[in-house]
Amino acid sequence: MKIGESWQRSLEVVENKAIRIIDQRWLPHQLVYVTLSSEEQAAVAIRDMWTRGAPLLAAVGAYGFCFALREQADDAAMEAAYQRLLATRPTAVNLRWALERMKRVVLPVAPPQRAEAAFKEAARICEEDCAANEAIGNHGLTIIKEIAAKKPTGQAVQILTHCNAGWLATIDWGTALAPIYKAFDAGIPVHVWVDETRPRNQGAALTAWELQNHGVPFTIIADNTGGHLMQHGMVDMVITGADRVTATGDVCNKIGTYLKALAAADNAVPFYAAVPISTFDFTMRDGIREIPIEQRDGREITHIQGVDAAGKMQEICITPPHAAAANYGFDVTPARLVTQYVTEKGIYSAAELPELQKA
Amino acid sequence: MKIGESWQRSLEVVENKAIRIIDQRWLPHQLVYVTLSSEEQAAVAIRDMWTRGAPLLAAVGAYGFCFALREQADDAAMEAAYQRLLATRPTAVNLRWALERMKRVVLPVAPPQRAEAAFKEAARICEEDCAANEAIGNHGLTIIKEIAAKKPTGQAVQILTHCNAGWLATIDWGTALAPIYKAFDAGIPVHVWVDETRPRNQGAALTAWELQNHGVPFTIIADNTGGHLMQHGMVDMVITGADRVTATGDVCNKIGTYLKALAAADNAVPFYAAVPISTFDFTMRDGIREIPIEQRDGREITHIQGVDAAGKMQEICITPPHAAAANYGFDVTPARLVTQYVTEKGIYSAAELPELQKA
Repeated sequence: MKIGESWQRSLEVVENKAIRIIDQRWLPHQLVYVTLSSEEQAAVAIRDMWTRGAPLLAAVGAYGFCFALREQADDAAMEAAYQRLLATRPTAVNLRWALERMKRVVLPVAPPQRAEAAFKEAARICEEDCAANEAIGNHGLTIIKEIAAKKPTGQAVQILTHCNAGWLATIDWGTALAPIYKAFDAGIPVHVWVDETRPRNQGAALTAWELQNHGVPFTIIADNTGGHLMQHGMVDMVITGADRVTATGDVCNKIGTYLKALAAADNAVPFYAAVPISTFDFTMRDGIREIPIEQRDGREITHIQGVDAAGKMQEICITPPHAAAANYGFDVTPARLVTQYVTEKGIYSAAELPELQKA
Repeated sequence: MKIGESWQRSLEVVENKAIRIIDQRWLPHQLVYVTLSSEEQAAVAIRDMWTRGAPLLAAVGAYGFCFALREQADDAAMEAAYQRLLATRPTAVNLRWALERMKRVVLPVAPPQRAEAAFKEAARICEEDCAANEAIGNHGLTIIKEIAAKKPTGQAVQILTHCNAGWLATIDWGTALAPIYKAFDAGIPVHVWVDETRPRNQGAALTAWELQNHGVPFTIIADNTGGHLMQHGMVDMVITGADRVTATGDVCNKIGTYLKALAAADNAVPFYAAVPISTFDFTMRDGIREIPIEQRDGREITHIQGVDAAGKMQEICITPPHAAAANYGFDVTPARLVTQYVTEKGIYSAAELPELQKA
């Protein structure tokens, strides 16, 4: 990840005993780093959305597990820590995946050595995430190159993305944004339509901030706008991340993704999901019926944060007092609307996913 | 329109010489009435969006024209007032329609009697608007009744709406909300999913406030949410207003309407446009290619207003500094996605619109 001229990671291990992450609640207005060194701090950071994004959550959860084992490492304590951390974000399949992996690796180790083994495994999870995302970036780059080749020279490839599936959501590179960074760095002209992504505004706040720091041209739009742009030939491709993908290719992602996929299909714009293989849930076949959708606090709809003219953070209410609000966090895009899945192992269609499962 | 126990109109004539409207910039936080008694005041109210909604704008413009004639009523002064008022919102089709009608009616009258004739015509415009909207309400009520009849007794009809096409946008009743008020008043259980409607939040601010004042149950949702609700059988019908409808039935309405119509079609949820006949533009056949789409200030995306914990109005910035934002005001929903058009003359399908044109 590039902030100005410096390259860093979203999660950095500090002196082998704590982790430093960005408290993303202050972005895009302030860049605030926090250091976490206990299971409870990690749990708060996950639950209260200081940190977010499936892969980054998973890594923070893994380190939370390490911190817990450092305090108490017998089987019962380990299981309790696993359960507590899992409960911080029940929809996050990567978090479960990371915690299960941690438990599996640590279980055969004698309790006194468990913390050390856990820290090593958490570091491996981070390295694998970076490598997977960079590979997704390289595979996705081929798609952008093909589109660029068909456009008049110098005309930017127009890419629409929803929510934040950038490096702020991972350890580095991001998933949906990795191909965009790779293309930009390769000198291919790109322009990104950034969906605001209500109610938490991860697009307007995080994706815009990331792209700005990397120097990639972008324009923020209301979530309502993508359909109009696609109707008028102003979008060449849509790419988003995913929180969970079924064996059949149904994509659970930030609420509103489904609407963009519908518009893409209606206007023959290709729709890609950028997905590390760890995000696939091969036990599920019908995303709409099987994937539980997290409901969050209605206050995320009725209230919104930003900075006033003096640069001070303010929270304001934008609805009538006592108005009811419903806040579904995710929706499911049926596989029939997804052109392809960009993974670290290559690019797959829904029909080819069984191959990926075997690989 | 009902505010608590009192029934009033969005525009009330005061002692036959001024008009009282709501300054909608303060809603839903404060109910501020303003009295306008000069052409200039009416122009400011239109231009600076104290008042909004195609039919209400038209009526305020008509009264502005009356106020001008009261000062000076010769042909030249009249033409000048017409031009000045028209320039306040050049894309507002209904405003032009009302001002042309006023001019046509007043022109044959001798200058000393012109103001009186103008006030009478402005009142007629208001009465016609109320009658048309109430008729839309009664026709739309039959649709809601049919849906209610198929549901288990007592289960609310679930209606999704986008933007504000309620009485705040008209003289009374509204268009899309008129059937909902009629159904509620008839004792049919209804519940409204209110799309927030970024970037100006007319749903979260105005529709929610209207429904709350009338006592109709509602829940505010992010614009991203409707597709998910429809996938899960939580929406029985979608109804929106329209800013312009072509002869073929393409519906130009607030940006994002198209996405909801796509989701409705994908989930076999009926999609209705509530449209007074004055909103049809029978000269146009291809809405996507022919209807010009207003682009508004990007600041409406990057900044947002509301009240802080102390109840004070604040404006905050929600994006990185200097981020580019594009703000398209409307989109076009192709006729193939619209189930029916609810007009004051009855309910029509796209194929039946030529009949309506002849009627």
